[in-house]
Amino acid sequence: MNDSTPADIDQACTHAAAAADTLAATTAAQRAALLRGLATALEGARDTLVPLADSESHLGPVRLNGELDRTCFQLRGFADQVEAGAHLAFSEDAAVAGAPPAGRPRLARARVPLGPVAMFAASNFPFAFSVLGGDTASALAAGCPVVIKAHPVHPQLSRATFDLAVAVVAALGLPDGTLQLVQGAGVSVGVALVRNPAIEAVAFTGSFKGGAALQREANARPRPIPFYGELGSINPVVALPSALAANGAALATALAGSITLGCGQFCTSPGVVIVQDDAASQAFVQQLAEALSAAKPHAMLHDGIRANFEAGAARVQGHTGVQTRVAGDASAATPQPRLFVTDAPTFIGSEALHDEVFGPSALVVSTKSFDESLAVLRAVQGSLTVTLWGADTDTPDHRRLVRAAQGIAGRVLFAGVPTGVAVTAAQQHGGPWPSSTQAFSTSVGYAAMDRFLRPVALQDAPPWLVQAKGQA
Amino acid sequence: MNDSTPADIDQACTHAAAAADTLAATTAAQRAALLRGLATALEGARDTLVPLADSESHLGPVRLNGELDRTCFQLRGFADQVEAGAHLAFSEDAAVAGAPPAGRPRLARARVPLGPVAMFAASNFPFAFSVLGGDTASALAAGCPVVIKAHPVHPQLSRATFDLAVAVVAALGLPDGTLQLVQGAGVSVGVALVRNPAIEAVAFTGSFKGGAALQREANARPRPIPFYGELGSINPVVALPSALAANGAALATALAGSITLGCGQFCTSPGVVIVQDDAASQAFVQQLAEALSAAKPHAMLHDGIRANFEAGAARVQGHTGVQTRVAGDASAATPQPRLFVTDAPTFIGSEALHDEVFGPSALVVSTKSFDESLAVLRAVQGSLTVTLWGADTDTPDHRRLVRAAQGIAGRVLFAGVPTGVAVTAAQQHGGPWPSSTQAFSTSVGYAAMDRFLRPVALQDAPPWLVQAKGQA
Repeated sequence: MNDSTPADIDQACTHAAAAADTLAATTAAQRAALLRGLATALEGARDTLVPLADSESHLGPVRLNGELDRTCFQLRGFADQVEAGAHLAFSEDAAVAGAPPAGRPRLARARVPLGPVAMFAASNFPFAFSVLGGDTASALAAGCPVVIKAHPVHPQLSRATFDLAVAVVAALGLPDGTLQLVQGAGVSVGVALVRNPAIEAVAFTGSFKGGAALQREANARPRPIPFYGELGSINPVVALPSALAANGAALATALAGSITLGCGQFCTSPGVVIVQDDAASQAFVQQLAEALSAAKPHAMLHDGIRANFEAGAARVQGHTGVQTRVAGDASAATPQPRLFVTDAPTFIGSEALHDEVFGPSALVVSTKSFDESLAVLRAVQGSLTVTLWGADTDTPDHRRLVRAAQGIAGRVLFAGVPTGVAVTAAQQHGGPWPSSTQAFSTSVGYAAMDRFLRPVALQDAPPWLVQAKGQA
Repeated sequence: MNDSTPADIDQACTHAAAAADTLAATTAAQRAALLRGLATALEGARDTLVPLADSESHLGPVRLNGELDRTCFQLRGFADQVEAGAHLAFSEDAAVAGAPPAGRPRLARARVPLGPVAMFAASNFPFAFSVLGGDTASALAAGCPVVIKAHPVHPQLSRATFDLAVAVVAALGLPDGTLQLVQGAGVSVGVALVRNPAIEAVAFTGSFKGGAALQREANARPRPIPFYGELGSINPVVALPSALAANGAALATALAGSITLGCGQFCTSPGVVIVQDDAASQAFVQQLAEALSAAKPHAMLHDGIRANFEAGAARVQGHTGVQTRVAGDASAATPQPRLFVTDAPTFIGSEALHDEVFGPSALVVSTKSFDESLAVLRAVQGSLTVTLWGADTDTPDHRRLVRAAQGIAGRVLFAGVPTGVAVTAAQQHGGPWPSSTQAFSTSVGYAAMDRFLRPVALQDAPPWLVQAKGQA
């Protein structure tokens, strides 16, 4: 397909802006009907969309059917949230008689939709972070039109999904501008979209490099706009001795599954494993190496991602102070998992080892003490997740570990593996820089709506507006 | 007083960072004791602080005593909020058995303090937006150390207030780094503070120029940090014909009081008044002009602000299509209020007329119809407030007007005047660019804490951590 021209992009944004007022004024029932209609349409086209997605992404039908289910689940989940009034977050403070500071007028707090959102689809989730993924669902739930930038890895799927969506929008009598699609493999389409004056916010899932560049564009506009970028991370796993002594073999199997899941192409894929050197950790690393050697991941999304994976793995392999435990074969038809081991001083002193290797690779950091493990964790930059195995009891050391984990991550796990991100109200998928550009926001879960709803205080508002919870 | 040196600034930030972990781990009772202790100390020193503030700011003892009361009220208000657990915003989603997407682990959502906050005090509020003002109170409530940049307009007051605070911190056994003070009239101190790697967020109240420059610094750091800038605005007042017909004289008196309050040195000072041309609006403008002519504002904060006011008023006065209704005398000892009138096409077509004139000046835009008034409102950039008089009934036009007002403002008033900002949970003091740099945040009211508390999801967290609502 051809890249969208500047005129195409401008028209899409203009249409979106023209739809903004109507969409903002939709009732909860209308928004819920739209979200549920999109879910139904997506499910109805499963038999054509999943093979199309597989042909463009190589992710396989099991994963893609599951991802389609998740996408429908989250569209319906946002519909439920809107029906429950979660998007309004309405609160009231009664007037207090008397002079300030204690006296005050009647004040209510409401939220209003921002307006057109530019949404950049991800390569690694053809459904859940693409045309009708979480960003679109949360923006529509908030009452914002969406201009979707399709990911060039799955252009046919994007177009087919978008066509379904357009039919749902039309059937509900909503404006054309509710959803728009633009496309292009180069940077110019994305830059033009972020610069367009009609765009009020950007949601992006992708690489650090691309995200940081688009964020600079958003900040450099005459009127800067929020840029919600979810950029991936190394997701450290801290395996304390007690956990490995009790359950090392099962944890090694689970971790190998997480590292190789989807060929390691998840932003929550565990990339660093911190263990204290003892007999149990040595056995665990051995079991992890065996499980990774035996794994056979599917092909990566495209040749460029594969080339980046091999280059990243080779960079770690060639790093001074790093031992290779699972070497893999860079020339194999599909990527082979890698496992490397290093010590705490090497890791802490080498910023290059703190970068994500996107794909089925992990680096074990073997430390000499709890304090050294803590220091390794603290050396990690902002991350979407930190997993702590064996920190269940309330001890001063565990509190220190939890504080360090909370200090760098958006989600802290005490069991299981970081891949798999539940869509729920308490979810937080977004962490400190550089894992996200706005660490206060989440791109998964129902709090994702908060990104597109701005608080407004209403002072002495008339009854009709209070009754409508601030929605005029 | 001497400017802080780079070494001073670095030491302040290092101390703050060293205190962050301890402060994050304080109990609600400890934080409340700190906030209440600061309020008590401030009240106890009223007889020395108010004269000092008056000598440095010229704001007069009535206003300054009231502002000290407000500052203590908000310190105690944050203490109450923390005791009620508002800073935690803790929520839980129970585990759901079964496979994803419906199945999920147990997830809780907690909030953790960001760490050291750099706080830039404002010139126009020596107490309420200064050393122990709303930014400091909300950051301490969140569990964050604060490095305060004193405003050079009131250095002695800043030092005296800070000394009181240091004694309170020490008496409670909290770390030295809880509060730090740096000072300097030039830009280099502020820039060094924002660039310091220990700083995790910036709260700023001041001019657009200064705020935008510091925001660029925050964005340009190797690790960007949130910059919460509250930059002021023109705060349009839309006076519909019905309101002026019913109550024009009283509204003119109230508006003149708001325009001249504090010599117009409020970020919520009304700068643009939109009326539809009819007999009632003509009488209203006449009454407003008379009230402004009779007003005798006190001196401005300093000579630079006075010079800027006179230059801004002269710029409006000299603008083609603008009539002067109250001319004032630029050479008078204290500033004289100004009132100008223009028509809708002139206002809409002249970006220069959309800029704030900081001081006791307002511009009436007289329109030919409701639709023209709406177009004038829409031409205004982001603003802290919009006031709508006469929009009380539920009509399609009033809904359009409310949507336009919500689209550009953080607070919409349906009665009264925009000056005077109640400290309460529903308050929103922050609007779209350029009135604020982060329109989702507020610098007044209890939601100001949200700026310094980052959400973290806890997956399968142990009971002790859930019981502590995620605070390790």
